[in-house]
Amino acid sequence: MAIPSASERIQAVRWDGKRLSILDQTRLPREEVWLSLTGARDTAEAIARLAVRGAPNIGIAAAYGLAMELSARPSLGALEEGADVLIASRPTAVNLAWAVERVRAAVMSAGPTTISSAARGEAQRIQAAEDAASEALAGFGADLLDGARTVLTHCNTGALATGGRGSALGVCVALAERHEGVKVIACETRPLLQGARLTAWELARLGIPHAVVVDGAAASLLRRGLADAVIVGCDRVAANGDTANKVGTYSHALAARAAGVPFVVAGPTSTIDPSTVDGDAIEIEERGADEVTSFGGVSVAPAGTPVINPAFDVTPAGLVSALVTERGVASPVDGASVAALLAGADAVA
Amino acid sequence: MAIPSASERIQAVRWDGKRLSILDQTRLPREEVWLSLTGARDTAEAIARLAVRGAPNIGIAAAYGLAMELSARPSLGALEEGADVLIASRPTAVNLAWAVERVRAAVMSAGPTTISSAARGEAQRIQAAEDAASEALAGFGADLLDGARTVLTHCNTGALATGGRGSALGVCVALAERHEGVKVIACETRPLLQGARLTAWELARLGIPHAVVVDGAAASLLRRGLADAVIVGCDRVAANGDTANKVGTYSHALAARAAGVPFVVAGPTSTIDPSTVDGDAIEIEERGADEVTSFGGVSVAPAGTPVINPAFDVTPAGLVSALVTERGVASPVDGASVAALLAGADAVA
Repeated sequence: MAIPSASERIQAVRWDGKRLSILDQTRLPREEVWLSLTGARDTAEAIARLAVRGAPNIGIAAAYGLAMELSARPSLGALEEGADVLIASRPTAVNLAWAVERVRAAVMSAGPTTISSAARGEAQRIQAAEDAASEALAGFGADLLDGARTVLTHCNTGALATGGRGSALGVCVALAERHEGVKVIACETRPLLQGARLTAWELARLGIPHAVVVDGAAASLLRRGLADAVIVGCDRVAANGDTANKVGTYSHALAARAAGVPFVVAGPTSTIDPSTVDGDAIEIEERGADEVTSFGGVSVAPAGTPVINPAFDVTPAGLVSALVTERGVASPVDGASVAALLAGADAVA
Repeated sequence: MAIPSASERIQAVRWDGKRLSILDQTRLPREEVWLSLTGARDTAEAIARLAVRGAPNIGIAAAYGLAMELSARPSLGALEEGADVLIASRPTAVNLAWAVERVRAAVMSAGPTTISSAARGEAQRIQAAEDAASEALAGFGADLLDGARTVLTHCNTGALATGGRGSALGVCVALAERHEGVKVIACETRPLLQGARLTAWELARLGIPHAVVVDGAAASLLRRGLADAVIVGCDRVAANGDTANKVGTYSHALAARAAGVPFVVAGPTSTIDPSTVDGDAIEIEERGADEVTSFGGVSVAPAGTPVINPAFDVTPAGLVSALVTERGVASPVDGASVAALLAGADAVA
């Protein structure tokens, strides 16, 4: 597949009707390599090694992965096996299980001869809905942060991570379209440097002024008044509004509170999991030591150094100024406001 | 110079009576390379590029650098030129200017024929005093944190950074000597990874159980109750107790406060600068972009990505549970308790 030109919109997950192509995010920003996926197993593998990432895009890719599996083997056995391997690929993002369940439900209500077309259709509906959700979310977020001129963000939550133009980064892009002089401070996001590698790549491509900082610098920049707001994505929002997101997020929430600037979480309602009571109930994925002890093949710690490497952390709802979704904004963020967003969702669905 | 065996104590700055040898910390943990320094200029260069680092060791190295300069050129011109180039090598650590001023004062009160021996003698007194201070400080700190079994720390504050066995890490080592099962969580400390490279190297060599984490993970580990205390070093303590230390420190202070665990600052009284009123008056060194945009020699951001790279941040005194020095502990940390420590210092001196 051709590499999109700078004028094309960034889209990291592409479906041609039969095959799923993904822009391998482990290779950015050095090379733009597209991978062609064919079924549940290779899609799950691409998710596990973060070639495709971002909670919404993981859901989209998983839906297509299951649909491709069912095109090759249109059976309930393939459905169960494919669903299991995909759901196991990453435990924290709720969109993954949500998307797989949507495809499963579509297949279960289809006739035996239309299993694979039902699955493909549902995957395409999921992608279209996430694209539309991203656009709506960006508008709500830009309304909320209309006065902000420098916004600090974490990880990558742009077009590489979601449908459309992104969640938190989509808000920044919408803000930059509305106002001259909007600038984004991108935290590099150790260990895998999605901020330095991916967010900086997207912002450079879009021509939006930006700077990269180490994660530990964010708090002092906020204290010194160098950012007007913090906005981050989310991998799972619990029923009470506690939010799991990329490790390092909770630090930024504490620093924003101390500095008196808004700390905003952005994500589609597919990221809200009403069956997760609170943050303590969210399983936090622990990843391998070599993500921390080496980079780009270069070892940065003594051989055999023990590591604790949680991929995510939990920010309590009380530190979140607002939760921005495609259906509107919850603020303050608590069980009642999250439930109201979901009730709106049910009313729309 | 021979590499010290594991049973020898770690000492990164060694004086043989004529020449200063330093263990090049930019090459650790991969190789142990000793550099031989001969004057003010190469010592300043070694300080600027962090081959020698840690506030107390910077002061010790600068004192020897100036003494070597005066051995080669025993003149007041050499004194002024040498002092200027050394003080300019790093702006935030106050020990640097403090040590240079001590050597200058010793030279000014010496006779014209004893300039160089006076300078060498003062440098040796500074090193001996910092060694002794480190031991005393470790004892006070271990008393203070006697009940802690898992201690989180930032950057490197061990024997590689100070006289003796270290400041904050010296406290951890003393604690581990007192009690079985003491464990240290070392934050990797981006951008230059002193925690992963140097603290892990020291702890492995000392046989103390430890784990390395990314800086952004510290807050959630504290929130989950996985550490009993945080202890860090300091590059400058202002008169009111505000503390400048390696970037990322302020985040840990906020997280410790939120988790209800002590946040302790450790450093010799040479790090206290009564002429700096508060944290806002501390100049924060801004370092080059490539420290952030590359990692272990591997580029991690698009070419030309703008960067904000403050080397330090300021933690307000109100977040510091205790300041541990070689003369005792200030707690709470405020203008009065810091002044009392310094008054004790004057009484001793």
